[in-house]
Amino acid sequence: MRVFQDAGLYLVVSPGRLSCERTAAEIVIAALKGGCRLIQLREKRLPIPDLVRLAREIRGLTMERGALLIIDDRIDVALAVEADGVHLGQDDFPVSDARRLAPDLIIGASSHSEAEALEAQRQGASYVNIGPLFHTTTKGWAGEFLGLDGLRRIAPKLSIPFTVMGGIKQSHIASLAEAGARTLAVVTAVTSAPDPEQATREFISALRAALQARQ
Amino acid sequence: MRVFQDAGLYLVVSPGRLSCERTAAEIVIAALKGGCRLIQLREKRLPIPDLVRLAREIRGLTMERGALLIIDDRIDVALAVEADGVHLGQDDFPVSDARRLAPDLIIGASSHSEAEALEAQRQGASYVNIGPLFHTTTKGWAGEFLGLDGLRRIAPKLSIPFTVMGGIKQSHIASLAEAGARTLAVVTAVTSAPDPEQATREFISALRAALQARQ
Repeated sequence: MRVFQDAGLYLVVSPGRLSCERTAAEIVIAALKGGCRLIQLREKRLPIPDLVRLAREIRGLTMERGALLIIDDRIDVALAVEADGVHLGQDDFPVSDARRLAPDLIIGASSHSEAEALEAQRQGASYVNIGPLFHTTTKGWAGEFLGLDGLRRIAPKLSIPFTVMGGIKQSHIASLAEAGARTLAVVTAVTSAPDPEQATREFISALRAALQARQ
Repeated sequence: MRVFQDAGLYLVVSPGRLSCERTAAEIVIAALKGGCRLIQLREKRLPIPDLVRLAREIRGLTMERGALLIIDDRIDVALAVEADGVHLGQDDFPVSDARRLAPDLIIGASSHSEAEALEAQRQGASYVNIGPLFHTTTKGWAGEFLGLDGLRRIAPKLSIPFTVMGGIKQSHIASLAEAGARTLAVVTAVTSAPDPEQATREFISALRAALQARQ
């Protein structure tokens, strides 16, 4: 879990359109080279045998570089490929069931409100993601965007690490650091960047600089 | 696994249109009363928290009546609700991975050809389903229907139990028994029947009569 305490980037990678047709492995290799140590594989449309194959490939890459791999949604896939953890949305497995089933996995949970974040913590989540903070087109989202105010309200109530997500761009980094965020989860800011390795490096150094300036 | 050797009915239950809007629990209660001892819950559209809740309810009902419960596709759900097994389609988890992950579960596999059936057996499946045998509208199916000839060709090559599926009606029972089938998997023959309990009872007694006549 140390990687959730370090200032860093949490890259959520999906094959397909969000990656400008680059493969998940290409994106992951670039992000790892850029210094990312926390990768989530999120792919809901792939047939499971293909997902298992892809997850194994990404597991190999992340292992070589000492990065954590979190699998979205499927606890069975996470266990099968020996990933470090699983990330659960509000429509995925209940956190308490996941915790019983896989006591040794990192279990992350998406939360869209203070109530959801505290409930995930209560059920045994290892970390929660708070979001979406800002407008994003990555996921259709009909709810409210939490914004910096939402983050400032929720973050102090949590005793477990948290990540933040949703429309995060480099221009947000200073204010996110100010609001207490240490781990920024992004999709397109890296996967759709002209140079994902460079984008990763810039994000991480900007975040570290902002956190140092805050101390 | 004894229940796969007994002459019997394997009911695959899905909530929704195939059940004439009756709930899965209503169908399962009726089938259990009618003598069914083998239930599969197949529901791919339900959000996972709802699927877990439903699977727990069906687990309680099947436990009370000494029936086996098999969950379609999701090994994590099967483990979480303490089901007896999981059923894997060709687009679900690879059987060998499932076997490593859950050594104590009954693992069933769908097979649409001799090659798939033998491969599932090789990978450690507890049973295979052979199908679809006959025309069915339950699933869109673009491949060939195996028919009795397909069953007669595949069944003798298997050393593990098998079930048969796809468009099975009471009128097929004598010829299926003749071809070596002992466990008939059905969806709508029970779930869409005017009286699911009665339909279950009739299926099972017709199958047993046909198998006795064959001895």
